[in-house]
Amino acid sequence: MARQTLALDIGGTKIAAGLVDSDGRLQCETRQPTPHSDDPEAVWAAAERAIADTLAAANGAVDGVGISSAGPIHLPDGTTSPINIPAWQDFPIRDRVIAAVPGVPVRLGGDGVCMALGEHWRGAGQGVAFLLGMVVSTGIGGGLVLDGAPYHGRTGNAGHVGHVIVDPDGPPCVCGARGCVEAIASGPHLATWARAQGWAGADAKGLAEAAAAGNRIALQAFHRGARAIAAMIASVGAVCDLDLVIIGGGVAKAGPLLFDPLRAELKNYAGLDFLSELRVVPAGLGGEAGLVGAAALLRELPVSPPPG
Amino acid sequence: MARQTLALDIGGTKIAAGLVDSDGRLQCETRQPTPHSDDPEAVWAAAERAIADTLAAANGAVDGVGISSAGPIHLPDGTTSPINIPAWQDFPIRDRVIAAVPGVPVRLGGDGVCMALGEHWRGAGQGVAFLLGMVVSTGIGGGLVLDGAPYHGRTGNAGHVGHVIVDPDGPPCVCGARGCVEAIASGPHLATWARAQGWAGADAKGLAEAAAAGNRIALQAFHRGARAIAAMIASVGAVCDLDLVIIGGGVAKAGPLLFDPLRAELKNYAGLDFLSELRVVPAGLGGEAGLVGAAALLRELPVSPPPG
Repeated sequence: MARQTLALDIGGTKIAAGLVDSDGRLQCETRQPTPHSDDPEAVWAAAERAIADTLAAANGAVDGVGISSAGPIHLPDGTTSPINIPAWQDFPIRDRVIAAVPGVPVRLGGDGVCMALGEHWRGAGQGVAFLLGMVVSTGIGGGLVLDGAPYHGRTGNAGHVGHVIVDPDGPPCVCGARGCVEAIASGPHLATWARAQGWAGADAKGLAEAAAAGNRIALQAFHRGARAIAAMIASVGAVCDLDLVIIGGGVAKAGPLLFDPLRAELKNYAGLDFLSELRVVPAGLGGEAGLVGAAALLRELPVSPPPG
Repeated sequence: MARQTLALDIGGTKIAAGLVDSDGRLQCETRQPTPHSDDPEAVWAAAERAIADTLAAANGAVDGVGISSAGPIHLPDGTTSPINIPAWQDFPIRDRVIAAVPGVPVRLGGDGVCMALGEHWRGAGQGVAFLLGMVVSTGIGGGLVLDGAPYHGRTGNAGHVGHVIVDPDGPPCVCGARGCVEAIASGPHLATWARAQGWAGADAKGLAEAAAAGNRIALQAFHRGARAIAAMIASVGAVCDLDLVIIGGGVAKAGPLLFDPLRAELKNYAGLDFLSELRVVPAGLGGEAGLVGAAALLRELPVSPPPG
């Protein structure tokens, strides 16, 4: 029988699980809403159910479990404290999953890293060794694949690109800082800015429709957000020396409304020669990137000779 | 006889070579000014002389050669095109060194990576697995040690933190972008800003003396630079999830004039929980960090189990 990995994707709105085959294809999936509960065990019960359903679909035979979790996580301890799951503070997700699926390797990663890994394996980043995968949605998040491998960082939270500061005098951010790109270019902040300029719509989806219809303020809002994202990408590119940036999430669905000004502004901000080939593309996978990337945490890493 | 590595440090003002023992100690060093010449071979002749002198000091017995080069470099090709050595465009430094010291491994790294590696081995970063080493001087540069190993990036130019954009409407930068931290906080830019405010001095060294004597404009200049560096560090911390930032270079010699406002501003900009323990410290090594780090390129990397 083909090798199958159990993938678990813990998010603030849904908990998903599925089976991913050795080619990175999602063979089956179960989703349920994340319980709104103060009881950490009530949230875990939903995850446990998703795991049990998926194990049953695999006749109990999986070669490992990969967990994608909304962050922040703490990788050394295997715990997670998702901002949007208040019941889980330092919840020992890795140990719980090890107990639920004994005898196979279990790996944990942040949801940004898993999105990037999923795109690297099966999406827009195939064959690319150095990439940033990011999501522009209610917030802005991301993860890094460096030298073909997931880059977790000291605590598992590397790739928090939404909190790159693009304007030291910019608006306050939920993280406590100011001028983070998330506080300027996330969907809700795009809409808030447009409303402050007199646009009468409600949200980022409406803003994209208005921009597509030629509304001047809506177009300006997208350009302003794209400019902030471009400055962030130039900065991350200079630090990480990347090939590719992949952008998914609801706001990225606006397509050229976002990508056209973003690529134009990136030419202004990415001045270093080694950034001249840095490409920015839409995500190739949809919501399944997290599950595919969670399974990718279990893949054997290619062994490459040291560079230099 | 103790194992010795030949280290070569190619910079715009000097070319240095030395022997580094297996404990990371610099045993001998030779330096010469980088020739001002349009002839790439004239520059190479100086490097070759430094290599020959150092080989002679080692009685011909070295176990490898590590090269630190001013950038940009191109690691896949083993070439370098230092901004401050115009005669070298895609100069095949690695192949030349291989020919000059046959039969031993030769590794190339950017000067920022080598500074970070030197500090990691023998300086302020000992025992720290995730760090940024940076220099604030005529320019601002840096390099990363991630998970205990040098991080080179796609082309060998990772860690170019001087070109993190901290103000999208900021002053133009030599790289072609605007608002790069280097265009605000490098020594010459600190002095230029202070002179524009009415300060009558000449350079960053004079500015540090004026600030130490309580000159208001000079103090403001350091605070303004420190704030830009703090925003950059918060951004790099969010992306790379680091333990430590090490700052060397002429401007860092100002000590508390730079580090006090920098640490205060970092508290404002590093809002994420996982950044709360990020420390910023002065470099522990002086000018020899490049040679020690070049030798460190040859060290066996510890093999650690995959995280997660």
